[in-house]
Formats: sequence, C-alpha cells, structure tokens
Amino acid sequence: MATKSFYAVIAGVGAGTGRSVALKFAKTYPVALLARKPESYQDIVKEINDAGGKAVGITTDVTEQASVENAFTEIQKTDGFAGAGLAAAIYNVSGGFGGRKPFLETALEDLDASLASNPRGLYLFAKSALPLLLKSVPDSPNPPTLLVTGATASTRGSAFFSGFAAGKFAKRGLAQSLAREFHPQGVHVAHAIIDAVIDIPRTKGYNVNGGAPDGKLSPDAIADEYWHLHTQHRSGFTQEIDLRPYVEKF
Amino acid sequence: MATKSFYAVIAGVGAGTGRSVALKFAKTYPVALLARKPESYQDIVKEINDAGGKAVGITTDVTEQASVENAFTEIQKTDGFAGAGLAAAIYNVSGGFGGRKPFLETALEDLDASLASNPRGLYLFAKSALPLLLKSVPDSPNPPTLLVTGATASTRGSAFFSGFAAGKFAKRGLAQSLAREFHPQGVHVAHAIIDAVIDIPRTKGYNVNGGAPDGKLSPDAIADEYWHLHTQHRSGFTQEIDLRPYVEKF
Amino acid sequence: MATKSFYAVIAGVGAGTGRSVALKFAKTYPVALLARKPESYQDIVKEINDAGGKAVGITTDVTEQASVENAFTEIQKTDGFAGAGLAAAIYNVSGGFGGRKPFLETALEDLDASLASNPRGLYLFAKSALPLLLKSVPDSPNPPTLLVTGATASTRGSAFFSGFAAGKFAKRGLAQSLAREFHPQGVHVAHAIIDAVIDIPRTKGYNVNGGAPDGKLSPDAIADEYWHLHTQHRSGFTQEIDLRPYVEKF
Amino acid sequence: MATKSFYAVIAGVGAGTGRSVALKFAKTYPVALLARKPESYQDIVKEINDAGGKAVGITTDVTEQASVENAFTEIQKTDGFAGAGLAAAIYNVSGGFGGRKPFLETALEDLDASLASNPRGLYLFAKSALPLLLKSVPDSPNPPTLLVTGATASTRGSAFFSGFAAGKFAKRGLAQSLAREFHPQGVHVAHAIIDAVIDIPRTKGYNVNGGAPDGKLSPDAIADEYWHLHTQHRSGFTQEIDLRPYVEKF
Repeated sequence: MATKSFYAVIAGVGAGTGRSVALKFAKTYPVALLARKPESYQDIVKEINDAGGKAVGITTDVTEQASVENAFTEIQKTDGFAGAGLAAAIYNVSGGFGGRKPFLETALEDLDASLASNPRGLYLFAKSALPLLLKSVPDSPNPPTLLVTGATASTRGSAFFSGFAAGKFAKRGLAQSLAREFHPQGVHVAHAIIDAVIDIPRTKGYNVNGGAPDGKLSPDAIADEYWHLHTQHRSGFTQEIDLRPYVEKF
Repeated sequence: MATKSFYAVIAGVGAGTGRSVALKFAKTYPVALLARKPESYQDIVKEINDAGGKAVGITTDVTEQASVENAFTEIQKTDGFAGAGLAAAIYNVSGGFGGRKPFLETALEDLDASLASNPRGLYLFAKSALPLLLKSVPDSPNPPTLLVTGATASTRGSAFFSGFAAGKFAKRGLAQSLAREFHPQGVHVAHAIIDAVIDIPRTKGYNVNGGAPDGKLSPDAIADEYWHLHTQHRSGFTQEIDLRPYVEKF
Repeated sequence: MATKSFYAVIAGVGAGTGRSVALKFAKTYPVALLARKPESYQDIVKEINDAGGKAVGITTDVTEQASVENAFTEIQKTDGFAGAGLAAAIYNVSGGFGGRKPFLETALEDLDASLASNPRGLYLFAKSALPLLLKSVPDSPNPPTLLVTGATASTRGSAFFSGFAAGKFAKRGLAQSLAREFHPQGVHVAHAIIDAVIDIPRTKGYNVNGGAPDGKLSPDAIADEYWHLHTQHRSGFTQEIDLRPYVEKF
Repeated sequence: MATKSFYAVIAGVGAGTGRSVALKFAKTYPVALLARKPESYQDIVKEINDAGGKAVGITTDVTEQASVENAFTEIQKTDGFAGAGLAAAIYNVSGGFGGRKPFLETALEDLDASLASNPRGLYLFAKSALPLLLKSVPDSPNPPTLLVTGATASTRGSAFFSGFAAGKFAKRGLAQSLAREFHPQGVHVAHAIIDAVIDIPRTKGYNVNGGAPDGKLSPDAIADEYWHLHTQHRSGFTQEIDLRPYVEKF
C-alpha cells in the first residue's frame, strides 16, 4: 500500500525569505509557490526541479479571493500534488511596506495596501489552506502547519510606520486567533517576528548594525526556523518566536 | 481680547459609550457627533442643545475618505465651531464585530468590515483631525487629544473572533504609531482597552459576570476616563489604559 | 450617627513622588507616611499638619516583616487613624536601583536590594494592607485601593539594568496577581509604569529629553493620576497605566 | 592539532525536563548536572555514562553564591571538563512554586523561596557561567548559550499564584536584560515560556486537558527545543519562545 504524499504551499516568494523557505521545504515536500509575478517564482521553480525536487509556481494575487481560490484549485490539479495532502502552508507575503513616512504625508492607498497584503491576504490564504490542513491531521508526518511571517512592527507601532504597523498588528492578531481555534484540532499555527533587516540582494548595500558580520538576518536561518516549527510535536507547539541577529538592538 | 474657543469631535455615537462621552465633553466644549445614521446622533444632539450646550450631528461614513473629509469641512463651517480650535477627537466607532464565529464560517466581508471600521476609519479620522489638533497645541486649555476606543481583542486574538481581532490589533498598532509621532509635537494619543461588556440598552438582558451589581462597564465610567486622559498635563501622558469591571475575569 | 472616617498609607516618601502623593491624598484623608529614615517624612508631615491636614510618619523598613507589621499597628493606635478604615495603600518604594552596570560588575547585593525593596516590600506591605482594605469595601467612599509604582524596567529588561529589571518585573507580576484575586472582592489594585525621569530635586541637573520644557515627569502629575485611579468606580477599574512626558522616546 | 572540546552545564535536574535536557545535550557534550540532592542527578549521570557519554553530578544549592561558585570550580577540575569550554548553560531550576494559595494564606517564606530559586539562582548561575560562555565565543561549534526555563506565570500574574508570579516575572526580566547585554558579545540568551503541565512521573495522575493524548508537554519536546535554540546561528537568535500542547488553552 502506498503511503500518502504531502506537499507545501508558500505564498510570497522572491529573492529572499520565500526562496530559502521554498528550497528548505522542497527537500521533503513538493512545493507550490505563489507570487504576483512569474519572475518572482520562475527561477526558484527551475532551481528546485533541476535539483530533482518538485515545484510549481502559480501567479496569484493573495489580496483577491478568486485568485487565491484558483491557486489552490490549480495546485490540486497539478501532477505531483493531486491527491496529496497539504502539510505546510506558509504566508510570507511582504507587501504594503510603504516606507518610513510622516503620517500626514502617507496616502490612504499605503494603508490599504498594508491591510490588503497583511490581514486580508492571510485571511484568504488561511481560508483555502486550513480545510486542507485539517484533512491532513490524521496522517501527516508532521503536524500540519500554518506559518506566518511577521516583523518588528507586529508588536511595536513605531513613529512613521503607521500603515505598516496597522497591517502587521492585524496579521498577528489574526494568526493568534487562528492558533487558539485550530491548535486543538491538530493544526499548528505559528507567527514569527522577524526583527531584522534580511540579508537579500535588495539589502546588499544597506549599512546595518555597523556592518557587523552576520548583522543582517540570513534568509536560510529563517527557513531553518520555519522547518523547525513545522516539525514540532503536537505535545509542544510554539505559537510565536522572535528572530534577530545577535547585534540587533531591541 | 476674546479667548479662542475649542470644540471636540466624536466619531461613533449611539446609545452607549459615544453618548456618554458626548455628554461629558459637551460640559466644556461644543461637540460634533459623527455617525452613519442620523438616528444615532439626533437624540444626543437635542439633549445637549436643550441643556444649554452646543452640539451638531453629521452623518458620516468613517470608512470613506470623502465622507470624513466632508464632515470636518462641515464642522468648521458650523456656527459655534467655525474659527474654533479642535481640542479633542475621539474615535469610538465600533463596527465590524461580526460575532463569535468559527473561522471557516466567516465571510471575507466580516473581515473587510472590521478592517474598514477599525484601522481604516481611524486612519481617515486621524488624517483630518491631526492637522487641526496640531494647530491647537499652542493655546488649547488641555493638550489636544486623539482618543481611540479599543477592546479585549486589541491585545488578545481569541478563538472565533478572527476578523474582530485583526481589526482591533490594527487599530491599536496605528494608535501606537501615532502616539510615538505626535506626542513630541504636543498632541496626546491614547488607546483604551475596554475589556468588558458595556452597560447599554442593547446589553440589558445579558447575563454578565453572574449578574453581579456593576458587573457591566458603565459608559459614564468610560466617559470620565476619556475626560481624564484629555486633561492630563503634557508632563505625563498615558498612552494606554485598560478598563474593566471589578468582577471581570482577565 | 457619625460617618466612618478613612485614611491612606503611603510607603516610600521623600522629596519626589511620595511627597506629591501624600499632599494629594492628604486633601481628603489623614495620611500615614512610611520611610526608612525620619528625615524622609518629617517635613512632609509638618507641611500637611501645618496646612490643617492630618499626617503621621513612621520609620519603617519595608523589607522587614516585623517593621511593616509594627507600622500598621502603630497607625491604628494613632489618634485620627484609630477606628478609621484604610481607603488607599500606596507602595511607592524606590530602592534597589543600583545604577547602570555591566552584569558582571554587579554585586549579588544589588540584586538582593532590588528584590527586597520591590517584590518583597510590596508583599509585606500588601499583607498588612489588604485585610484592612477588604474591611473598608462596604463603606469606603471610593473603592479601597492598592497602588503600586512601577518603572520602564517593569516591562523591559534593558541591558545593564539586570537587577533593577528583576525587581520591577517581579513587583508587576505580584501586583497583577493581587489584582486578579482582589478585584472581585472590591479592592482595586493598579500598577503604574513610570516611564520617565521624575522632576525632583535630585534630578535637577539632569539633561533629559534635550532639556525640553516639561521633559521630566512632574511628581504632581503622578499624584493626580494616583488619585484618579483611586476614585475610579468599581464598574471600571484600570489595572495598569503608563505615564511619560510628551517628549519621551518609547 | 587537537580541536578544543566543549561541555554543557544544567542546573535543576530531576525526573522531568532536566533529565531530558541532560540526555539531549549529552549526545554532543559532556554534561555537568547540578541539583540540591544527589538523588536528583545520580541516576541520570549513571544512565549517560553507561551509554558511553560523559556526565558528572554536583550537589549544589543554586540560591547560595558559594555553592554555585564551588560547582563551577569543581566542574573545571573534573576530568573530561578541565580545559574544555562551556558551550551551553541551562537554568532549569523549578523551586519556589508554593502551590495555589490565597495571598493572605501565603507565608513570606513562599515568596522568598520563589525569589531565591528564580531570579537569585539565575543571577548566581549566570554570574559563573557568562564569563565562561564569553570565552567560548571564538571557537564554540554553536554560539555559546544561556537557556532559562520560564512558565505561564512568567508573563501572567494569575490569582492565587502571587509568589510564583513574582519569581517568574523577575527571572524573565533578568534573562531579557542579559540577552540585550550579551547577544552583541556573541552569547545567546533565550527564555522559554513553558505554558503547560509537563509529562513527568509526578504528574502521571493529573487529569490535564481532559486526558487528551499528548495533552501534557513532553520533556523530550522541551529538550529538543533547547537544543534547537542552542544551535541557532548568530544571524538569527530567538530570545523567547512559548511551548504548550496543542490542546492547551491560552
């Protein structure tokens, strides 16, 4: 009798955390990668498939219900995913930052973008993912997991980051509510406070923490952490972690 | 030389907290009351004007930019408000509750309503109010104040309150960010965690805290608290309080 | 029939917060002032009595059980206090600061002093005060109140303040536990996070917040706040507030 | 050229978490186990040594400076530890619980015991461990780590757990302060909020979470978590985690 197979879905992939998380989870599962633009996932999909793994990319606007629902439908029709169970769903969308701006110089669109890509996107993603995660509870090798990427602004509303803080606080509140509802049903929901500048191509020139070695957070470290959270036994679920370089002020 | 006069604006009035807050601030200031429907403010406006105070009601949808901007324009054209300074702006809108519901039975509209009336409404309200509050810094009798009503769900994402928690967390994050930006400019921004069932007509039949006397939070107690926060000297601003009946579990 | 009279006890008086709190509460109640050295309370006692109020000072080491018990026994034997009820007990002891020091340069005595004057002192003070506060529940004009002075370090363990943070965290945890136990019995327990340099003779020369006017927290503002907390109706108790000057970074 | 070897120290071992943590770390390091009574560590030491690992037990009262200092001196004289570097120091002492008791029925000794075994014990342990951990920074295979076991009461002062909350809050504040001071020097300091009844011989009969399978926290899950924290790269340190069974209310 064949063992049931399982896959992972990662929303929000690009050159940074999403890529590292995809590569990490692809060592064990086929991975479906969602991003708004094909150029965000194409190289990663190729990298994984070339290395003998299994990946598919689906162009998705996580802020639109139909787009998210369609993505999950597509995944379940894709060879290598069809008939398999969802083991891990990772919401790593980072839109809506808007930059550091005095409140009176921000536009309503900045706030709306933050709310759309943070709580609204997570809501839509979770709405599609949780029924599948629940179905995997009886036989998934690790407790089915919903992972959510947060930021410094998830617990601290700093000056000049009004819209960003609104979105990140909201996403954290939603993740916490989901944890309290779905943990007892066997689905692990964890929120990671990424309190750092991440070491990705875009931040290459940033002078962070005085240029100290390892002064930016390695995306591979985040990926390791997410994998670790995914593999926690149900006897001991962590709902929230913080993660920052040793030299980061907090 | 005439002393400059000042007024207060309260968004979200009805039979409960908003009414008590309006009556309290009306003892000192003309008050402008914003609500989506005239029947929410008409009686309060009449009650205040009959008692020799000054009140005006303006039908406003706080979730729509044009409606909020129009409300503030209207206020500044109204007799008794024109030429006066804004001393206190209170965001007490309570929409988007949605009730206690398993996440998978909620609708996207529930979340959207919570985000609209919590962070988005506060954003729009603050966008119009803060420039006026800043102008009042030099001569307002009390530090110009932006007060925001929160709830238990502002700091705790409970099971079955997913959308509500998202909205309340977001509003708190936004208020915190505004406090950090505007306190140094002399505008006091405070957030009140109302951790209780409020004693209003709608909750009359609720069996709360075993029916203990004073087991529901009196809206007058909230109003007293808001007035107190408004009158704090700039040497000592409180950014956040909790408020609950003595018998409330927390 | 004579109305029962009530008094207040304040532990930790000196030139700063304690003095302002004593003067504030002395406007309504006879006040008993506890300090380790007579020179800390003598002038305040004289000031209050000269102004027609009623004050008594008792030399007390709040870190020693016998000394605290003796203080409360003394109070209840003192003319003007005997037969009266305890309306408010304020724990404002500020010992154990120890200064900013690298952990490895601190002495065990620094930690012990912080633990002694923070959780241990509050424990002993509460042990004597709470039975008296409970007795006052039925007829006290305001809900009997236990107020506890905290600091920035109550919720944030900063580098180089190890012992101070340990003591302040502990005091907050204890106050929170007492609130949850005694609120339902009608005694209000509140904790104030004083996130500021207080404007007292000792800090006169400090350059705080760039020398901004009102950049230090006025002890009278703290006293006003404590009185306000004391007068909250049991329908709406605040368990915790923060308090800081408008220009304070947080 | 010989590679330098490293060891771990665990304070607070017995039949539960300490034993699991000792066994876990013993797979990689020689381990020194500190407990007040030899019967707490003897079996574990034998178990590890019989299995080909290296363990030593030292009778230590962590609340006494001389006893802790002596323990570290002893370790460094012990064959297999002498000349080696300290890679991990784990403070898992669980004394001072005192049980669930109305505050007025507690004894000062309950509070003192909690303060002694929580902040004071951690202080003494850290005082001896941190200089050794600092020395290991340049060549330890994993960032030298100080791990601290917390509890539900570390962030929540519940009714009837006054002394316990005081001790746990204090320990958390101290750990946080140490993290902020020593992270930039390369030593990882993490605090684990164990929000659960642990599944150990003593709790065998407890009816926890309705008797649900895995409804108690497995001590092996805690050990896995501690090992994971120890192996985090300095690019991404976690300062605090929570850990609870899937069915635990929080």
